[in-house]
Amino acid sequence: MRVVVIGGDAAGMSAASEAKRRAPEAEVVVLEATGDVSYGACGLPYKLADGARVEDLQILTAERFRGERGIDVRLGHLVEKIDAERRMVRGTSEQGPFELGYDKLVIATGARAIKPPIAGIDELWGKGVYPLKTLQDGRTWKKVLADKPSSVAIVGGGYIGLEATETLREGGLQVTVLEALPTLVPFLTATGQERVLAEAHKHGVDVRLGALVQRLQRRANGKIGITTSAGELEVDVVLMAVGVRPNTDVATGAGIELSVAGSIRVDEQLRTSVADIFAAGDVTDAFHAVTGARVWIPLALRANRAGKLVGRLVTGGKAKAPPVLGTAAFRFFGLEVARTGLTLEEAKAEGFDAVQSEIKSGTRAKYYPGGGKLTVCLIGDRASGRLLGGTMVGPEGAAHRIDTLAAAIHAQRTAEQLYDMDLAYSPPFGPSWSPLLLAASQLMKDMRAK
Amino acid sequence: MRVVVIGGDAAGMSAASEAKRRAPEAEVVVLEATGDVSYGACGLPYKLADGARVEDLQILTAERFRGERGIDVRLGHLVEKIDAERRMVRGTSEQGPFELGYDKLVIATGARAIKPPIAGIDELWGKGVYPLKTLQDGRTWKKVLADKPSSVAIVGGGYIGLEATETLREGGLQVTVLEALPTLVPFLTATGQERVLAEAHKHGVDVRLGALVQRLQRRANGKIGITTSAGELEVDVVLMAVGVRPNTDVATGAGIELSVAGSIRVDEQLRTSVADIFAAGDVTDAFHAVTGARVWIPLALRANRAGKLVGRLVTGGKAKAPPVLGTAAFRFFGLEVARTGLTLEEAKAEGFDAVQSEIKSGTRAKYYPGGGKLTVCLIGDRASGRLLGGTMVGPEGAAHRIDTLAAAIHAQRTAEQLYDMDLAYSPPFGPSWSPLLLAASQLMKDMRAK
Repeated sequence: MRVVVIGGDAAGMSAASEAKRRAPEAEVVVLEATGDVSYGACGLPYKLADGARVEDLQILTAERFRGERGIDVRLGHLVEKIDAERRMVRGTSEQGPFELGYDKLVIATGARAIKPPIAGIDELWGKGVYPLKTLQDGRTWKKVLADKPSSVAIVGGGYIGLEATETLREGGLQVTVLEALPTLVPFLTATGQERVLAEAHKHGVDVRLGALVQRLQRRANGKIGITTSAGELEVDVVLMAVGVRPNTDVATGAGIELSVAGSIRVDEQLRTSVADIFAAGDVTDAFHAVTGARVWIPLALRANRAGKLVGRLVTGGKAKAPPVLGTAAFRFFGLEVARTGLTLEEAKAEGFDAVQSEIKSGTRAKYYPGGGKLTVCLIGDRASGRLLGGTMVGPEGAAHRIDTLAAAIHAQRTAEQLYDMDLAYSPPFGPSWSPLLLAASQLMKDMRAK
Repeated sequence: MRVVVIGGDAAGMSAASEAKRRAPEAEVVVLEATGDVSYGACGLPYKLADGARVEDLQILTAERFRGERGIDVRLGHLVEKIDAERRMVRGTSEQGPFELGYDKLVIATGARAIKPPIAGIDELWGKGVYPLKTLQDGRTWKKVLADKPSSVAIVGGGYIGLEATETLREGGLQVTVLEALPTLVPFLTATGQERVLAEAHKHGVDVRLGALVQRLQRRANGKIGITTSAGELEVDVVLMAVGVRPNTDVATGAGIELSVAGSIRVDEQLRTSVADIFAAGDVTDAFHAVTGARVWIPLALRANRAGKLVGRLVTGGKAKAPPVLGTAAFRFFGLEVARTGLTLEEAKAEGFDAVQSEIKSGTRAKYYPGGGKLTVCLIGDRASGRLLGGTMVGPEGAAHRIDTLAAAIHAQRTAEQLYDMDLAYSPPFGPSWSPLLLAASQLMKDMRAK
């Protein structure tokens, strides 16, 4: 049996490893378009720091996958066409065109950085304006930063944009964040958004909201001129971080059905609409744990998990891809920001009688030095009392506390059931009534109030 | 209606406040034997630090409870007898004996430090050998420390003993911990126990295990000689922290039924065995969330919660005291230690086919600087797959991550359901597979193995 995996990052290499582990007799081939496999892409923003090495993000080299795991990793192999009838993929490599038959095919091509349709972007793409998605992007950025630019514009205030903002600002650059939306971190409440904005200002970051980039242009002085809907600016270099989209080129040609946001539609067994073709990771959709609806939420844990599961599934094992909550966290200077489940707007759109409550709590016992305030927002369904989602922002505790809420939501708990939980208390780590319990109490009140 | 509350700490003042809030017309009287109400006793070990003030642990003064909340707080009022027939309490205060009738009575007398039956302890109790349980104990310790002792023996390696060890050691004292058991923190696995011990050694703490204190004696040089089953030592001062027991003097006289560890037996409505007498907080038992069995686990959140509930119950409200898991965390120098639910031994004693698994995981992404290793131990029931308990030890993340496990156990989740949860990932806060997920995976394997 031959298992062919297209794409050698988180999902792809997890899939290949699991398949080979379960079926050592199978031939497992990974076709990776770039020169890199298996790296921690989420670490890229941190590796922009002086002295940090992008290569440290490599988890296992292609050589080691070959030698230690017996996986036939082929770098620089771009798959261009899937011939599902003949169970074959075709593409090109440095050695010319190739074709390869498969018994089971796994598409794990991930997502790619969006290059938005901005006037002038083509001339500057890779020459002053860069994304930050692949290891190769990281290497490029290290070279760019070695030239000691003094100013950078970061287009897009998502996770990657804000994490890179922190690293570059702490590296001494003048950083301007250009966000087309009227706010940073739209999934937060107004309070949370204000805290993130205040943190940016505190660290000397120039944030321009409602600033849609309209034109990029190399100026005579060598700088890049940026025209936005909210004014102009001039910088040395631009980081384009307006998001990612599923990398489905190869799938669309093969008649594979697509889903939300152009991702590949898969069932719980990670099967696409075409026989013997599976897909896993950021390229696919998933089911939401609260709504059961198909969603596209590209995050590393889901990709790793789906990769492992698909490796089991293509080798005859049983598995079911679990639903997702989109639980996520990031740090922004001295703040932790986290979310899980639905936002108020999403909950309402799904037809819930959604109630949102927000509290502010100390991150330590009142009498314990240090710490600060944690803003906790919970969203619940008035009809059932069930928890639907929530967010947290504060100087400490948010990135881990969010998992407690995620666990409660996964287990279909109500606000009252959360309020009744026996959670840990220790003065350096929180008040005796955990912020989550205070938030649950407030939500119960607000649900009753109407 | 008159509600009388005996005891003015966490449970008692929560009860009084909630009762008065719900029934402003009721007369709410709190009889507190000491001169203090409502303080954060859990903060005492930290307030032993130079410059830290014990008085900062006071949450609200008796004056403010009187003035702002209309609660009749009577300090220095020791209740000696409950006359349940005549619905009356009797006792003594500075003004002489008193008696007071009640419609509803709440016993919230908490727990008190154990004074173990050691030869010579009576002569030195309060004169070189001190507990650390009440605010008054804290004041005494501040005076003791003002005399600049150079060495202290801490008898008992529980939460309070270890937290005080950290503070006193960091204050420059020579600290010896005397633990009668063969290990510190018995609820941890051997790995966890070794980590705690190594942390103590790293910070120059002399830990003597299996050292049962047999005799205390003032020496001619003014120091205190301690004879233990594992040798002798001489110190300036001794902290007696061998645990607490329910303070039930007043209850036993009234024929109120007792329970586990001598605590007051209460039902889910916090009623004792005697009509119109309720009890709440550290003085009572509770039901365990996993086993349903009666347990005595004195912890602050439970006390606060029960106090609030009993305030509702004595004023005609409905409420049910939720079951407990004994979720707890503490810091010990650079380590966080946390637990929830049953230990392996407890689970086996309860008749579960209990399996224990342990993993070690990074506390940050592998490529992210700093952090360390988190030891996670999970206990599950092979028959049902259900999670029963767990512990964590590591330099960061344990104190908050334990709540995720607590939530999963409260919601009767299996190891597999935990493994399938969508938890947050961010390089500064953990690896993409959360330590809890890795532990759940290991537990699933170990359960299948048999």
